[in-house]
Amino acid sequence: MKQSHLAARTDKNAPHDAESVNAELLTRAGFVKKEMAGVYSFLPLGFRVLRKIEQIIREEMNAVGAQEGLMPVLTPRENWVKTGRATVDIGYTPTENTILSWSHEEMVTPIAKDLVRSYRDLPLCLYHIQAKFRNEPRAKSGLLRGREFIMKDAYSFHANQEDFEAYYEQMAHAYFRVFERCGLRAYRIQAGGGDFTDKFSDEFSVIAKCGEDTMIFCEKCGFAQNTEVAGTLTKGSDCPKCSAKLDETKCIEVGNIFDLGTKFSEAFDFRFADAEGKNQPVIMGCYGIGVSRLVGTIVEASSDENGMIWPHSVAPFHLHILSLKEDETAEKIVADLEQEGYEVLFDERNESPGKKFADSDLFGIPMRVVVSKRSLEQDSVEVKIRATGETKLVLMSELAQTVEDFFASKK
Amino acid sequence: MKQSHLAARTDKNAPHDAESVNAELLTRAGFVKKEMAGVYSFLPLGFRVLRKIEQIIREEMNAVGAQEGLMPVLTPRENWVKTGRATVDIGYTPTENTILSWSHEEMVTPIAKDLVRSYRDLPLCLYHIQAKFRNEPRAKSGLLRGREFIMKDAYSFHANQEDFEAYYEQMAHAYFRVFERCGLRAYRIQAGGGDFTDKFSDEFSVIAKCGEDTMIFCEKCGFAQNTEVAGTLTKGSDCPKCSAKLDETKCIEVGNIFDLGTKFSEAFDFRFADAEGKNQPVIMGCYGIGVSRLVGTIVEASSDENGMIWPHSVAPFHLHILSLKEDETAEKIVADLEQEGYEVLFDERNESPGKKFADSDLFGIPMRVVVSKRSLEQDSVEVKIRATGETKLVLMSELAQTVEDFFASKK
Repeated sequence: MKQSHLAARTDKNAPHDAESVNAELLTRAGFVKKEMAGVYSFLPLGFRVLRKIEQIIREEMNAVGAQEGLMPVLTPRENWVKTGRATVDIGYTPTENTILSWSHEEMVTPIAKDLVRSYRDLPLCLYHIQAKFRNEPRAKSGLLRGREFIMKDAYSFHANQEDFEAYYEQMAHAYFRVFERCGLRAYRIQAGGGDFTDKFSDEFSVIAKCGEDTMIFCEKCGFAQNTEVAGTLTKGSDCPKCSAKLDETKCIEVGNIFDLGTKFSEAFDFRFADAEGKNQPVIMGCYGIGVSRLVGTIVEASSDENGMIWPHSVAPFHLHILSLKEDETAEKIVADLEQEGYEVLFDERNESPGKKFADSDLFGIPMRVVVSKRSLEQDSVEVKIRATGETKLVLMSELAQTVEDFFASKK
Repeated sequence: MKQSHLAARTDKNAPHDAESVNAELLTRAGFVKKEMAGVYSFLPLGFRVLRKIEQIIREEMNAVGAQEGLMPVLTPRENWVKTGRATVDIGYTPTENTILSWSHEEMVTPIAKDLVRSYRDLPLCLYHIQAKFRNEPRAKSGLLRGREFIMKDAYSFHANQEDFEAYYEQMAHAYFRVFERCGLRAYRIQAGGGDFTDKFSDEFSVIAKCGEDTMIFCEKCGFAQNTEVAGTLTKGSDCPKCSAKLDETKCIEVGNIFDLGTKFSEAFDFRFADAEGKNQPVIMGCYGIGVSRLVGTIVEASSDENGMIWPHSVAPFHLHILSLKEDETAEKIVADLEQEGYEVLFDERNESPGKKFADSDLFGIPMRVVVSKRSLEQDSVEVKIRATGETKLVLMSELAQTVEDFFASKK
């Protein structure tokens, strides 16, 4: 895509109200626009990242047999009365009979009840990817804590506790794959259940200076606990799992999975006939990932003083081709790379080299290729790897192979 | 996908409150679930259709240079005060300072203002696909008129009227391609502007008995007018374009495009510097398609007494394989067809043939393949084309070619 056509305008200066690295960089780069506290628009560059993250999540959810649907935002208050959550104060109420969904147990449980008669219909897992609304008193930190945000929420239904627990572990593994594919190392932390359950839950958290939470963690084996429940474990303690030294860090929660027990199935009288024909309440789990929060988290986890550094899997483009008044050659390179299936942003704007380099660093596209008179004199282009800063001249005849090798190594 | 795993339960009986063909069939088939008046959940089968329609629209929008983003649902009231639309009664107000977006001119205009400085930055077209909320007093007719619904809305920005009008025509052609790819014949009807503009607009409407509107139309050349503005033209008149006889029909509006003029750019003081450096207000157009309404419209346009009939382009699956206790052979057929890239629903349930046939007709998947003992005795399977009812025995060795020919003819 030609950058002169791209709906993005970069800004050298941080917005006056940016209170986090992700808010600053995403706004300066034209990936998002803040509309009000906790509410953002995604512009085309940011939307490309959001969609790629969604797709990774979708693939991993489908891989564990979850089925995608789409439940509404506007939900009948009567459903929330049944579960005792109609008056939870994060819920917006556009009319006296409706609540904007801040979670979907109240919608998905009756849907599953329609589908399930006997143990033969179980297990079942449904999910959707959708805007959620929470009247957050402390909406802040860019995409990390919003009043409107995109969430993947899945809900599973089981005939017995063993089946639930086995699926819960499958889902935990799917979560690790999602975060890994997004270029993040997540730690799994056992935690409480909040508004969702009296039973157990697990958080998935990523190390980040700006995080709201603090964890004690073992870098070696991945053991982690929230400091609030870590008891006598502190920085420097021996890891109870592998005996390495524990460390302490701020972190961002990017996912959360819950044992809901029979709380919601009982509220909706959702029972099934077991193998002996006896009626039993269905056991439920729920599994959330903050999709738009992940966009912000990746920026928090991976940036430098010049801008963002996207992992190739979710980068808005794979390659950024900068033409320094050598448009004809650059166009040919762009066409060849697009032909190979790469997503290419082509900076053919009539801007100074300095402005082009700065914008490119800010955008954080994994590989930059500069086509200039000086490089072409050596039949070469200049290739820069954004993550490492490594820069080298590559012969035009070897560019395709260089690109292929780089992206193959990131699979 | 195995049907025993599919989150769908069919019902022989129409829901008591189904007041339209689409509500009845989509609900009976387990494609959607009504949550309250004008609010539906999409279950996996319905979601597959919705996603395919979205993707067709996305491709056609991208083809005319529109760029996709995602604007929020929760929007600041102050923006609506600027345009005089804060008190339009279809708008939900979850808090005193916010309105649930029922359209996005109030969001997109400031976004475009940030992006555009001079005529060199124009034209620009932004779109998103997203839930819209309208407090409809007469929410009815299944997916045709909802209080929450999925919409594609695009907004274009131009330096002058000529450029706008040329783009408006490009967009009209893109709309015809969208509807054609969805298996619909749309008629273009010049109309008024409603809450959007004092200038002109065009509606795109599809013939359907249940439609709320009535048009005078020419089947031969596509000329159409709303009866409210058709003047002396009536059924039987000569078409003013091609002289064929005009007909009259109920119809469903599936898309609408508007000349917004400078109404919104002036409200937000959105001006650009023209080639002479003079400040001019930007000229805007907007372009909507009811995505979830299209799901319902296709059902209204294409069904029979046994169920829905999906065009192959948006069908939830391409092929429905029914095994009548011949699972092993059927499984091999399914695996082979999936290998070829077809989406296959495999009915391996322990149900009667009658139930399987009825569900298959109800789902409306374009091609049905029945694997039974009787057919296998002739080394054959029974193939039925849902749209025509045509049924024939096909040799197993010729099935792949039969399937390929059928779907190639639908491209």
